[in-house]
Amino acid sequence: MKYPDTKIVALCGGIGGAKLALGLNNILDQKNLSIITNTGDDFLYLGFYICPDIDTVIYTLAGVNNPDTGWGREDETWKTLDVLKELGADTWFQLGDKDLALHLFRSKEKRKGELLTTITRKITNKFGLKTNVLPMSNHAVQTILETENGEISFQDYFVRQKCRPKVSNILFKSKKPVATDAVKKTLSDKKLDGIIFCPSNPYLSIDPILSINKIKKLIENQKKPRVVVSPIVGNDSVKGPTSKIMNEMGIEVSSVSIAEHYKGLIDGIIIDKSDGEQADKIKEMGIEVKLSKIIVKTKEEKTRLAKESIEFIQEIAS
Amino acid sequence: MKYPDTKIVALCGGIGGAKLALGLNNILDQKNLSIITNTGDDFLYLGFYICPDIDTVIYTLAGVNNPDTGWGREDETWKTLDVLKELGADTWFQLGDKDLALHLFRSKEKRKGELLTTITRKITNKFGLKTNVLPMSNHAVQTILETENGEISFQDYFVRQKCRPKVSNILFKSKKPVATDAVKKTLSDKKLDGIIFCPSNPYLSIDPILSINKIKKLIENQKKPRVVVSPIVGNDSVKGPTSKIMNEMGIEVSSVSIAEHYKGLIDGIIIDKSDGEQADKIKEMGIEVKLSKIIVKTKEEKTRLAKESIEFIQEIAS
Repeated sequence: MKYPDTKIVALCGGIGGAKLALGLNNILDQKNLSIITNTGDDFLYLGFYICPDIDTVIYTLAGVNNPDTGWGREDETWKTLDVLKELGADTWFQLGDKDLALHLFRSKEKRKGELLTTITRKITNKFGLKTNVLPMSNHAVQTILETENGEISFQDYFVRQKCRPKVSNILFKSKKPVATDAVKKTLSDKKLDGIIFCPSNPYLSIDPILSINKIKKLIENQKKPRVVVSPIVGNDSVKGPTSKIMNEMGIEVSSVSIAEHYKGLIDGIIIDKSDGEQADKIKEMGIEVKLSKIIVKTKEEKTRLAKESIEFIQEIAS
Repeated sequence: MKYPDTKIVALCGGIGGAKLALGLNNILDQKNLSIITNTGDDFLYLGFYICPDIDTVIYTLAGVNNPDTGWGREDETWKTLDVLKELGADTWFQLGDKDLALHLFRSKEKRKGELLTTITRKITNKFGLKTNVLPMSNHAVQTILETENGEISFQDYFVRQKCRPKVSNILFKSKKPVATDAVKKTLSDKKLDGIIFCPSNPYLSIDPILSINKIKKLIENQKKPRVVVSPIVGNDSVKGPTSKIMNEMGIEVSSVSIAEHYKGLIDGIIIDKSDGEQADKIKEMGIEVKLSKIIVKTKEEKTRLAKESIEFIQEIAS
């Protein structure tokens, strides 16, 4: 542990963001790290209440994630899915046997009337973590993509249709778009040292969190430094369909666009060393820039990027 | 196939009865065999709609059952259950990874509003069987045991409490105790050659079926021979808690008691050779008796007992 007294809130989606979340988890006292996690991808599948981003974050922090796919668990088997296929069931969403148990457990707790926040804490504890993995809301917020084929829900777009349809707009639908008490308390904590936006897809993974007005306001009004790690290197996304979606929505694929997107919510951005020429344009917006190597693969690289994020916050604060 | 034109209805519970059902399946044209299956044991568990007896019958007929336990599937793994245990979930009911898929599939179909009969036919077909596995009802009938510890539901008694509580009475609770159309049609079929009560527990596995008045009446009024294979050898049950329950309810453990129990519903009973001295007492009730070796372990023995049941029906009919 390198920063025993530093208290951080991270905003995170799935695989891309979880890499930085893991780095932060390695260098902070776990109880001082809160990860507000996107639940816009949550969906019901074969009767299960599935929270893909929460699961990815927990599996990653617990070190039981599948290092090849990024999602799901290591040493996974697929017995149930194989038989489901034999029975002719719809099996476009990959349910591993170990992973299934988590969906089953969460669904059972949901039926008992437990809040998603409480359930997530139970699961996190069972995986031996003290980290505060916080669903952004206890109420459904659904990420919907407006595409050439009409409106598509997130998992349909992302998993079943493999991000193929052209996206024109992204909506967040909710009958009760309210932040959880835990999220509000965490973002209002006077002892907080800063907020880190993980390098998740801004449009699909972070915007659902920001679509909850109270969360956006608490970040806007936050006095402590707020920094983002860009998910873009050059004119491509580090992971997933970010650059494809930016192109389709007519947004220039660059870290400048990412800074612009978060303007008013961030004080600094970490961009890739190779994109140094973009720094001036970003600084003109009143946003500080730090250069780094933002593609992180090894545990050491993830820890290093996390340290640089903390140092950046300390630099801005001083 | 030995009896290509013989049309049989069997009444069946789980493991014990499924042995004879398998024998019948081996010697009849599958489409001429209907197995009315007990659903009094059905229950909801971790959100799944589970039909233990239907599953045991289908797995057994399809040759994918676990030959050691009698229930569940062969070559099973327990990954999901292991993780559920780690998560602290209630795991008294054994859910194998392959078996789980069937519960998942059935539950999904139930949520779609499909009838249990239709779902069972789909599953049976997917397992390559043409046999008519017929749930006794599409509506819930719950087997409840009155015990020294109060009323206990079947799975709680049978699986969780391992049949330990002392039973004083057995109840079948249902808001809509009606037979399915398929069951009524099958029992009214003019081409039927006979009815076979499998050697299942009469009190826990066959009585739930007979608790549906229409089914009982159709069997009572049936002109074709109705025979039962006794589940008792000497003063002990071949399988499961039959003799324990008979003792607790003050019923003498013998094939005579079994014949008495089914009086008015059967024309003949197959009892074990070693119990020949009971034959006269049974014949006095107007019930014909056939002696056989009723403990069947190998495939050949199951087929032999099935043949003897058919021959017994033919003898009574002639």
